[in-house]
Amino acid sequence: MFKMVALFKKPEDPEEFDQYYFGTHLPLTEKIPGLRKVNVTKFTGSPMGESPYYLMCEMFYDSKEAFKEASKTEESKASGKDVMKFAGNLVTFMFGEEVNE
Amino acid sequence: MFKMVALFKKPEDPEEFDQYYFGTHLPLTEKIPGLRKVNVTKFTGSPMGESPYYLMCEMFYDSKEAFKEASKTEESKASGKDVMKFAGNLVTFMFGEEVNE
Repeated sequence: MFKMVALFKKPEDPEEFDQYYFGTHLPLTEKIPGLRKVNVTKFTGSPMGESPYYLMCEMFYDSKEAFKEASKTEESKASGKDVMKFAGNLVTFMFGEEVNE
Repeated sequence: MFKMVALFKKPEDPEEFDQYYFGTHLPLTEKIPGLRKVNVTKFTGSPMGESPYYLMCEMFYDSKEAFKEASKTEESKASGKDVMKFAGNLVTFMFGEEVNE
């Protein structure tokens, strides 16, 4: 399965971030046509102390082609615009595939 | 569910890395008692071109306490020692919890 991964660095105000992320941004993302599943992970630490990232969102699509089609939709554009607005300085995006059987 | 996440930067020789990772390291990791599931993601790119990470391994445990217990085992120590040997300069570890319902 194809996945788009968003990694967020720690925001200045985690409480405000969470409120916006879960209350406004994630619902926008979940409207994207073709999106099969969303996994959100909150990082709580690391063996060395503080974690370099605060949150990860994994967005699953049937294939890279399905993701590309989804990216053309208004819903995807709205979600992309929104994330850059509230967390453009915190977020890193990557494409990937789960490789285990 | 508690997860331990390992993010690997791109190795100098990806083919050699894959051979060791999937042929030797991952089987060692999979022996850790209490480990419920392992998801391996290979990153293939990013919207900006090259991805900052090459591979992610998500290791799931029932709870943080279960992970702590697992960490005391010989199998966990062997896996930890092995990863530092072949990829100590590439790997970042984080603890997290999936927060979506």
